[in-house]
Amino acid sequence: MAGTGSVSIVSSGPGDPELLTLRALRRIEAADAILYDDLSAGPILALARGDADLVSVGKRAGRPSPKQAEISRLLIDYARSGAKVVRLKSGDGGIFGRLEEEIVALSEAGIAFEIVPGVPSPLAAAAAAGIPLTRRHTARRLQFITAHDASGTLPKDLNMAALADAGATTVVFMGKRTFPLLAAQLVAAGLAPDTPALLAESVSQPGQRLTRTTIAALAASLAQALGDAPALIIYGPLAEGYAP
Amino acid sequence: MAGTGSVSIVSSGPGDPELLTLRALRRIEAADAILYDDLSAGPILALARGDADLVSVGKRAGRPSPKQAEISRLLIDYARSGAKVVRLKSGDGGIFGRLEEEIVALSEAGIAFEIVPGVPSPLAAAAAAGIPLTRRHTARRLQFITAHDASGTLPKDLNMAALADAGATTVVFMGKRTFPLLAAQLVAAGLAPDTPALLAESVSQPGQRLTRTTIAALAASLAQALGDAPALIIYGPLAEGYAP
Repeated sequence: MAGTGSVSIVSSGPGDPELLTLRALRRIEAADAILYDDLSAGPILALARGDADLVSVGKRAGRPSPKQAEISRLLIDYARSGAKVVRLKSGDGGIFGRLEEEIVALSEAGIAFEIVPGVPSPLAAAAAAGIPLTRRHTARRLQFITAHDASGTLPKDLNMAALADAGATTVVFMGKRTFPLLAAQLVAAGLAPDTPALLAESVSQPGQRLTRTTIAALAASLAQALGDAPALIIYGPLAEGYAP
Repeated sequence: MAGTGSVSIVSSGPGDPELLTLRALRRIEAADAILYDDLSAGPILALARGDADLVSVGKRAGRPSPKQAEISRLLIDYARSGAKVVRLKSGDGGIFGRLEEEIVALSEAGIAFEIVPGVPSPLAAAAAAGIPLTRRHTARRLQFITAHDASGTLPKDLNMAALADAGATTVVFMGKRTFPLLAAQLVAAGLAPDTPALLAESVSQPGQRLTRTTIAALAASLAQALGDAPALIIYGPLAEGYAP
């Protein structure tokens, strides 16, 4: 490899390789190096060339993960060595994917890059459950939040007028631990305790589990046991659902 | 074709065939019939079998479009004839895609169906502009609305506490015509007139155009001229953007 390489920031979708885009697949197949975030990348990494460098930069239980500056440094070093680099992000990297630090670092280093969008996990969860995320008269706004700040607790500055709106569908990322507290705040702000909710675990992966419930029942259940699976919570005036 | 067919409701993404998922491509290639919405499906329809029925059911300038009940009837009739049917939706069908009527009709008719999620157009727009839709400290909520109700005017019951929140990124679908009025309401509710905005036209298609502006300047410009291209408006504390 000679000359300057390039970086593709590739959104992988929720984990099922069939939910990769054609462009994402092409980039993965051509990559000299793939920097990836988490265990869910397994079946997707199997699509890489046999001689590609596969570098984990994500959090795994019990192991320290590289800091953001180290990830950016790795991306730049690989690109300067002439490599075609893929930075693999789960879901869509533009939504709670910590894209910005890497974009800024690549841009300042003068490394060519592109961003390949992907299927966000909540859309895969909704498709699997047979639930559209918007509804003509009852769910005319859709919003995404993370319920987990840098210290792992519920952010203090949440906009409750937005989140307790009975006319919106809300998707909560990384929310299992803090949902009992969030649900209490939502109900205090006027949202009905029996507002429909969907707990979507391991979306699009072999252990996928979709649990239809209500915000109050889900809060009670998560206060008892969290489980290990990565999960999304969706609440609002959800359609009945017609999972095939 | 004999026996009962099936329906795949396939989200095509924003229009570029490279942003199809592998599953979407597989369903399109296998389809006996494809019911599609709009002109942007052109290069995607070219992936269909030569003998597949390609049926337009969407709006086109100057021509009446079939009613929702007729679309559901067509889907059911094709499936009952034993066909593998694809119902192609642009973007992701779960976001302002009018999925629910068709799901309910298929379910009531006892027709097997699946929903294939796709890349929503705003994520493709953001990727092309080099702008993440969330930011760690400044844009911690992301919301989607349509600024166009059944009568073509700005909905009256918008949640302004949600929409004028300086800490959120907002994506407005079908908003070109009503944005001058919406922007006036946002500013009246306290959002700064120089809040960054991105007008994204013909996302991922040959005529793609990304215009970086502010909500006040965009409102002024759209009050003068709308143009014909389908467009999304994104506003909020947008990152600088590093479009390659």
